[in-house]
Amino acid sequence: MKLNCSQSELNIALQLVSRAVSTRPTHPVLANVLLTADASTGKICLTGFDLSLGIQISLHASVEKSGAITLPAKLFGEIVSKLSNDSPLSLNLDENSQQVELISKSGSYQMRGMIADDFPDLPLVETGTALKLNSTFLSNAIKSTLFASSTDEAKQLLTGVNLTFNGQGVESAATDGHRLAVLNLNNILYDKNLEENNIESFENFSITLPSKSLREVEKFLSNFNSNEPVNLFVEKGQVVFIASDQVITIRTLDGSYPNYSQLIPETFSNIVEFDRKDLISSLERIAVLADQHNNVIKMSADNDSNIVKITTEAQDIGSGSESLSVTMNSESFQIAFNVRYLLEGLKVIDTNSIKLSCNSPTTPAIFSPSDTAFNFIYLVMPIQIRN
Amino acid sequence: MKLNCSQSELNIALQLVSRAVSTRPTHPVLANVLLTADASTGKICLTGFDLSLGIQISLHASVEKSGAITLPAKLFGEIVSKLSNDSPLSLNLDENSQQVELISKSGSYQMRGMIADDFPDLPLVETGTALKLNSTFLSNAIKSTLFASSTDEAKQLLTGVNLTFNGQGVESAATDGHRLAVLNLNNILYDKNLEENNIESFENFSITLPSKSLREVEKFLSNFNSNEPVNLFVEKGQVVFIASDQVITIRTLDGSYPNYSQLIPETFSNIVEFDRKDLISSLERIAVLADQHNNVIKMSADNDSNIVKITTEAQDIGSGSESLSVTMNSESFQIAFNVRYLLEGLKVIDTNSIKLSCNSPTTPAIFSPSDTAFNFIYLVMPIQIRN
Repeated sequence: MKLNCSQSELNIALQLVSRAVSTRPTHPVLANVLLTADASTGKICLTGFDLSLGIQISLHASVEKSGAITLPAKLFGEIVSKLSNDSPLSLNLDENSQQVELISKSGSYQMRGMIADDFPDLPLVETGTALKLNSTFLSNAIKSTLFASSTDEAKQLLTGVNLTFNGQGVESAATDGHRLAVLNLNNILYDKNLEENNIESFENFSITLPSKSLREVEKFLSNFNSNEPVNLFVEKGQVVFIASDQVITIRTLDGSYPNYSQLIPETFSNIVEFDRKDLISSLERIAVLADQHNNVIKMSADNDSNIVKITTEAQDIGSGSESLSVTMNSESFQIAFNVRYLLEGLKVIDTNSIKLSCNSPTTPAIFSPSDTAFNFIYLVMPIQIRN
Repeated sequence: MKLNCSQSELNIALQLVSRAVSTRPTHPVLANVLLTADASTGKICLTGFDLSLGIQISLHASVEKSGAITLPAKLFGEIVSKLSNDSPLSLNLDENSQQVELISKSGSYQMRGMIADDFPDLPLVETGTALKLNSTFLSNAIKSTLFASSTDEAKQLLTGVNLTFNGQGVESAATDGHRLAVLNLNNILYDKNLEENNIESFENFSITLPSKSLREVEKFLSNFNSNEPVNLFVEKGQVVFIASDQVITIRTLDGSYPNYSQLIPETFSNIVEFDRKDLISSLERIAVLADQHNNVIKMSADNDSNIVKITTEAQDIGSGSESLSVTMNSESFQIAFNVRYLLEGLKVIDTNSIKLSCNSPTTPAIFSPSDTAFNFIYLVMPIQIRN
């Protein structure tokens, strides 16, 4: 292998594929990135793969001699990132020693690689038809729900985000058993023209993807050109996202995701409308004290004054109380929550006004944007309090 | 105690005095800040003190009733910082319960305090005369040398920065036994007029202050108005810095600081001049590999080509080599260093060009600004290498 390429393009690609390299690899080669160069196409290809998440990026280079090698992701990435970005790079592989020499304007670096044959193949499912998605909306679907998934590995399916396709749009959902976030995106398809999207040939699906991998995908999508569609291929045990020269593969979590829609109440006796930013500010202040104890805050809505009082008690430390003017259309009521759950959910809702809908202090409460164009709900289980 | 004050002033003062509050206090009251209010002067005073470093700030407030209390620094600081900054605050102390109520526009907070009598007195040595210092230069003196002090608590005096006053200027020095940074500041005095500075009545001194405390002082000084002098009082076991409404006390480290000036060679056979930024960039790239092994880099200066080659070998991983054009006035030579020591020292020198002066691969080497107006030297012990 012998090639010349630009420092900045190689650097960007290396930083991106490194997201899929495990920090605690189960096999030495998994700490490496795979680098392949093809003289006939004039392209090089970088791959990172932790056996669950795989990221592959192709870029143009001047390839004198084809070849393949794997190199330590961290070392290779750090050296390239620190080279000056006006410096053209050349890379030469000595096939006998598996040694790569990287030459820049100011110096040269030798790195010991491992043979490419040891690197596991990416499960590239490119059969069947692709669902063409809008990358910005896909990123949004992940971001708006991912936070509600469980971090407890024992909870298996709940450590992921569920995506369902019903022939029209995509619904994204995550729950850890205490709260549930659901975003319904009918506009996630890249092109409203159903034929263009191959929607007819696309079967309905429900897949659950690990949050850990999706966190990387979400960062990754922010670099996508939003004018280009992301092609989604779904197969048993695997999904593949493809956009221009970039490929992401994710192994799905096995099992059928809980039927969360049955948890969502259909009618509500209490509805209160808050200014979202004011509610967040008040909760953040109250959280300073609530965090000292058990994170519990109590909301008392008074229909005479149209004021919701938020209070917390941290025994032996102190107590706090905040008052917010609201619009409400119900009897006075009290309900208590984990303040951390509320703050996480309120922060992903990007509207000025927010609605709390609930029935009793012990049944699920829903936070949702007042503007129903945002098809998002955040269900939180209240905390039972003794008076 | 009963008072009204501005959120923003109280917030700034709380963040600053909190620097002197221990994160692992040896006594519960040391996790608190002392708040005193004086109706006759219309001032409140906040104090943080970890028994070594003390910070005290006074600010104007509308004090209805004098009093004193200590409050948990972290809790009080976080709540105040999250209150909206256009909100006036009122603070009321219930003397019987030691409970403080903090009332803002949007809500109220109760905090349990501890009685002020339990808070240790700041050792305020304001006797004698003060040396008036320029705060920017004082901050610079600390920043330029502090990094070279030891982090190993067993090394006692070497965990501090030594300040000496010789009747004219102040010299700041720090060493961990492997390297030594010395900054000589003749212009650190606030006013060149010796009489104004009380220099005549000020005895020469040599004090060593803990780096941990100085790190906080340096951040603190960046908030000082550089047009006002910092008054330095020195007494046995203690120094006090006073500027307008702010007071810092630091307990000195006992013992006599090593006579470091005898370590500095007087003549040099090899002198090489580098572009400082290029040298830093090359070292940062080489460090990626050097960090993998033992941090050792080798410099080979060639007087034919006027090139310094910097190389490193990380066994089984790889090797690197960088070349730099230099100005040199000596025979060719080789010398090896710990790359981390070099980078730390080179980063505090703020000049374009830098000089390496040395004699042999086993005797102290000096890095210093080429512009001798900057009275700074950084001595580094080379690492002995086998060829």
